[in-house]
Amino acid sequence: MLNIGLVGVGLVGKAFVKEIFRKDNPFQTQAPFKLVGLINSRKQAFSPQGFSSDSQAFQELESGNSASLESFIKEFEGLEGNKVIVDCTSNQDVAEKYPSWLSKKFNIVTPNKKPFSSDLKLFKEIFQTAKDNGVNVGYESTVGAGLPVIRTLSHLVNSGDKADKIEGIFSGTLSHLFNTYSSLSNRQAQSFAQIVKKAQEDGYTEPDPRDDLSGMDVARKLVILARTAGWDLSLEQVQIDNLVPEALQSVATSQEFLERLPEFDAHFSKLNEDALNNNQVLRYVGQVDSTGAASVKLSGYDAAHPFASLTLNNNIASFKTAHFPSPLIIQGAGAGDLVTVFGILADLLTISKIVEH
Amino acid sequence: MLNIGLVGVGLVGKAFVKEIFRKDNPFQTQAPFKLVGLINSRKQAFSPQGFSSDSQAFQELESGNSASLESFIKEFEGLEGNKVIVDCTSNQDVAEKYPSWLSKKFNIVTPNKKPFSSDLKLFKEIFQTAKDNGVNVGYESTVGAGLPVIRTLSHLVNSGDKADKIEGIFSGTLSHLFNTYSSLSNRQAQSFAQIVKKAQEDGYTEPDPRDDLSGMDVARKLVILARTAGWDLSLEQVQIDNLVPEALQSVATSQEFLERLPEFDAHFSKLNEDALNNNQVLRYVGQVDSTGAASVKLSGYDAAHPFASLTLNNNIASFKTAHFPSPLIIQGAGAGDLVTVFGILADLLTISKIVEH
Repeated sequence: MLNIGLVGVGLVGKAFVKEIFRKDNPFQTQAPFKLVGLINSRKQAFSPQGFSSDSQAFQELESGNSASLESFIKEFEGLEGNKVIVDCTSNQDVAEKYPSWLSKKFNIVTPNKKPFSSDLKLFKEIFQTAKDNGVNVGYESTVGAGLPVIRTLSHLVNSGDKADKIEGIFSGTLSHLFNTYSSLSNRQAQSFAQIVKKAQEDGYTEPDPRDDLSGMDVARKLVILARTAGWDLSLEQVQIDNLVPEALQSVATSQEFLERLPEFDAHFSKLNEDALNNNQVLRYVGQVDSTGAASVKLSGYDAAHPFASLTLNNNIASFKTAHFPSPLIIQGAGAGDLVTVFGILADLLTISKIVEH
Repeated sequence: MLNIGLVGVGLVGKAFVKEIFRKDNPFQTQAPFKLVGLINSRKQAFSPQGFSSDSQAFQELESGNSASLESFIKEFEGLEGNKVIVDCTSNQDVAEKYPSWLSKKFNIVTPNKKPFSSDLKLFKEIFQTAKDNGVNVGYESTVGAGLPVIRTLSHLVNSGDKADKIEGIFSGTLSHLFNTYSSLSNRQAQSFAQIVKKAQEDGYTEPDPRDDLSGMDVARKLVILARTAGWDLSLEQVQIDNLVPEALQSVATSQEFLERLPEFDAHFSKLNEDALNNNQVLRYVGQVDSTGAASVKLSGYDAAHPFASLTLNNNIASFKTAHFPSPLIIQGAGAGDLVTVFGILADLLTISKIVEH
């Protein structure tokens, strides 16, 4: 019986709680668990015997005590049995607590990219502490949500394969934007600014689309993959092609940004026309190789290239290795609450099998 | 320390032994092991303290006792500690021994398709016995060799996703033949008979290419995937499009088969021309859905379809599920000794983590 403590109860956290209590979900028998606590930035609720349903958990959180992560962790530590913290925040402060949690023999599962893509020292400390304490860190859902990207790369590396190059489209938002904007079968797409505006209105982008267009989210994912492959890459070493025009990087509001983005339509349109005239499409791709060269940038890809035929908001990861000189490719929905939860559940299944054996 | 007993020492078995003893392979520290025994159809060798190198193991096998699987298993059973049989045969008799081995608390890892694609009763008995005895069965390398196909589908199903349709190109040989024969960028390919003959000479097909062209290997893989998804499919329910012309199914030798195959070039050429004229290419695809409809057949695929742009002998698996309505796709080298060994090592890593915790 895994004791689960959930830190962060936003979109993904809520979807996670609903999914583990869903009546017909075989997860409950595959990885028997008790959800013993929830904490968000305001409130917390704790139930050592385990909440009996998602609605009970949410109600108790709503009427719970004021949040104190310290007391929450103390209470969690006092429980008997195997424990796992599911961190559904995207918080750096929470990330920095991982080593201390791991030394208390908590397992950790998370879609939070910060612990794995910020300071290299923190990354190494996390995995060393986990090893020293015989506990596990599952971070499948940090890249490509529920796609088996981290798991596959880890298996490759741990089985004696050697990665040469890792590349892919790792942002659901940027995948959607360029699959829509740059298409050989629909050259009469709307302007880039129109597509960004529509995507923001439909909730496909962050509230401020610059958070997607900056490339920082993709760069973080690239760093996570590189480190998983055994390469000591850090964010500042990634050459990032910021898609936010320089003149708009410092405007105060996302509204002003969206209003002024059409001024740059000609710029994007020229890039797109040049690509299409070469029978290529524009794709925003992250890549890193074993020499340490790493970039995140907009480039043209031939029509026959796997990146060119991507649709919707799908992600794609390509691993060129000694065993797979013709790359091993994984693609599919790589963004969204439910598929992110699926990545979390896959990690929890693995941990349950290991610690409950 | 996992005790490994290897049954079957052919191409894959030998490559496996070489790989686990390769000096710079991190597998040795990730999954500490002793290779304690090898047996092929003629000889066997046993070393309770573990062989120290691949060459020592092969030498002792060569100078070993006459093979007796019964005595081999008895000796293996007598060892202390966790045990795993790696079955590198493709033998039905060996497959039928799995339940008895699992009841002795041996874990099993194998690329042998027979245990999972023949009698449904055997399949269910294997997994029930494994569960009852707290041991594990790894069969990643039965489909797509080292590609994470089985693992991904299992995680999907065990996390509460529901598969709707599974399809793909699951034969490296047939992938190679049709990627060569049916290509929009090279419509002047050789005749089908020439391509088959060359592939056989280059060792890309079974010694008798009819073993590939019959579709039976693909049908077995489809059955394994369907059962992994929780569907009770059996081989006899798969509608198989046998690519061996009826007149040649019963000719005595592969040589005679290859000599007479050109008689059917016009047949294949017409299929190919019709496809290409529709901007499609021919691909040999297995598919099964949740209604139980299953087929293995040659069909045309649009140029933009992921199956159409496959190259070399790559495999591709596509899972359409509730969480992945736009399918989750995995592609890459799906045939060859080394990538098959990679699938075996991935399973051994998982088992090592579970049982040695």
